[in-house]
Amino acid sequence: MSGRLTIALDAMGGDSAPRMVVSGANIARRRHPQVHYLMFGREADVAPLLSKMPRLKAVTTLVHTDEVVGADDKPSVALRSGRGSSMRLAIDAVRDGAAAGVVSAGNTGALMAMSKFVLKTLPGVSRPAMAAFFPTLRGESLMLDLGANLVCDARNLVEFAVMGNAFARTVLGVERPTYGILNVGSEELKGHESLQEASAILREANLPGDFAGFVEGDDIAKGTVDVIVTDGFTGNVALKAAEGTAKLVSEYMRRTFRSSLVASLGYLLARPSLRKLRERLDPRRYNGAVFLGLNGVAVKSHGGSDSLAFANAIGVAIDMARHGIIEKTRADFAALTHKAAGPSEAAAG
Amino acid sequence: MSGRLTIALDAMGGDSAPRMVVSGANIARRRHPQVHYLMFGREADVAPLLSKMPRLKAVTTLVHTDEVVGADDKPSVALRSGRGSSMRLAIDAVRDGAAAGVVSAGNTGALMAMSKFVLKTLPGVSRPAMAAFFPTLRGESLMLDLGANLVCDARNLVEFAVMGNAFARTVLGVERPTYGILNVGSEELKGHESLQEASAILREANLPGDFAGFVEGDDIAKGTVDVIVTDGFTGNVALKAAEGTAKLVSEYMRRTFRSSLVASLGYLLARPSLRKLRERLDPRRYNGAVFLGLNGVAVKSHGGSDSLAFANAIGVAIDMARHGIIEKTRADFAALTHKAAGPSEAAAG
Repeated sequence: MSGRLTIALDAMGGDSAPRMVVSGANIARRRHPQVHYLMFGREADVAPLLSKMPRLKAVTTLVHTDEVVGADDKPSVALRSGRGSSMRLAIDAVRDGAAAGVVSAGNTGALMAMSKFVLKTLPGVSRPAMAAFFPTLRGESLMLDLGANLVCDARNLVEFAVMGNAFARTVLGVERPTYGILNVGSEELKGHESLQEASAILREANLPGDFAGFVEGDDIAKGTVDVIVTDGFTGNVALKAAEGTAKLVSEYMRRTFRSSLVASLGYLLARPSLRKLRERLDPRRYNGAVFLGLNGVAVKSHGGSDSLAFANAIGVAIDMARHGIIEKTRADFAALTHKAAGPSEAAAG
Repeated sequence: MSGRLTIALDAMGGDSAPRMVVSGANIARRRHPQVHYLMFGREADVAPLLSKMPRLKAVTTLVHTDEVVGADDKPSVALRSGRGSSMRLAIDAVRDGAAAGVVSAGNTGALMAMSKFVLKTLPGVSRPAMAAFFPTLRGESLMLDLGANLVCDARNLVEFAVMGNAFARTVLGVERPTYGILNVGSEELKGHESLQEASAILREANLPGDFAGFVEGDDIAKGTVDVIVTDGFTGNVALKAAEGTAKLVSEYMRRTFRSSLVASLGYLLARPSLRKLRERLDPRRYNGAVFLGLNGVAVKSHGGSDSLAFANAIGVAIDMARHGIIEKTRADFAALTHKAAGPSEAAAG
């Protein structure tokens, strides 16, 4: 799939939409020259923005709709009454084959509910998950779920492992990913029962890569494994705790450099290197929670995304589509199911 | 209680015990001249160390025991067969009034199980909790539980709020602490049912301070509230995720300063300020998980503690004892129970 690819964009989702969506697409256009865009939104708002970016306009089809999913709409309400919304039409485009993936910075719950309803889950998947990747000491790791499923049983966790593993192989480019289950201790005895059960199943499952068993909270930033599997409640708290701490340390650092004249001078000298560090840790680089387990590519950009962050989310959707994540995930689930149904190696409880 | 205070020390607990326990006590002795120590451990190992520190020796009573709780002993085993262990005797000393608090860097589970068994919980407390405080953008905050109770119901969470609140008032010196429940969103509708229920009760409970409702993972480092209440599983993961991230950012920073000659020079200039920053973030400063809800002061120092970390854990125990945390927690629970039993203001569900 190196030819032309079309990505559907919800032009109206996000705090700074549609402006940041259009200029985000324009940044993505420069990075990925082969890609076309299918934008859904209010023509009166979007068309003038596109007119200012003729090169983007040349690779974009704008589809008008007046309807928009509100940032505070309940997912159930959006699902029922948002059938003509920019978000929904963008998802429909993926189902209909008009686009290879959808990106929206709109209402997360609505996007998940609609994507699940429209795209359906892959065979073998009981619940799709939200995943994100982030920098670690070793490179980049993926964590899931991040909030789509607050309470998870062993089966959910096993499915997350399969999806995350496929993502690591396709998008992160890790040939044999390592993956582990987040727990409060690495000893086999610790933690909730569902974790024990999921661990036992994964030990037998023989997914591509290496199952590392249980990992702990500090393994997230260490990058001990490529894929961290957890329930949506814990994943959400852990990721936000990590983000908050990164900001705290950066802020302490900033105060430190301002604390004396000599320190300020030191800062001036180190500034170019520090800028590179800031870029490396820039949360916008890691923007885009991906929805895994769906029969289609769907990426959620932060509601507060600027154009750079949105362009990165588009990049993630393009990577997922180009590397055939849906096909790979489907194949892994088929292999797992086949195996679980086999005579001698039924998934251990 | 500004007079003489005695702290019981488990001389044999921790990777570098008894050496770091004795030298840790010696550091604490300089900081807290009024305090006496009751040390439990192997005389043949501890006495020679004490002999090298005559001033410490002058304020220390060494009680010999050959028995030691192993780092990998199960809590139930330690409880049954560790009645003569250094850890157990140190806890017994608190129960018997010979010491105002106990500090151990030994087996966490065993320390919790023994403390609970020997000291008992305060009236109104169904389960004691492990708590720790850490630096935030605003000062210092406390989080609990950190792993003593992996699954918690609303009642447990309410109790944690009461205990944490008392700790913030006594040890952190916050007159009217703010406290909140860790959740995946600040909207009232989100999260597990037990969190909703605990939130409803705390809104009515009228503890000293201000209940902020739900907080999220990034609020931990922001210091949005003085006390963060959560179940032991989530708390453990969140705290370790934060610690891991702090190390990650520091390591990135170190690499940045080594990335070029000019950056290295900048580092040299900023070094004194950066050293202060490192001290501020030094995990040894925040060493010591405190056990709250018990009828006695018990502090757990990290298993990997060095003498400085252990001295800080001793400092926490001294603070807790001096500021009468047990009495304050007891009074708060009495007020809460009284209120819940009252005719018109029964704890709301």
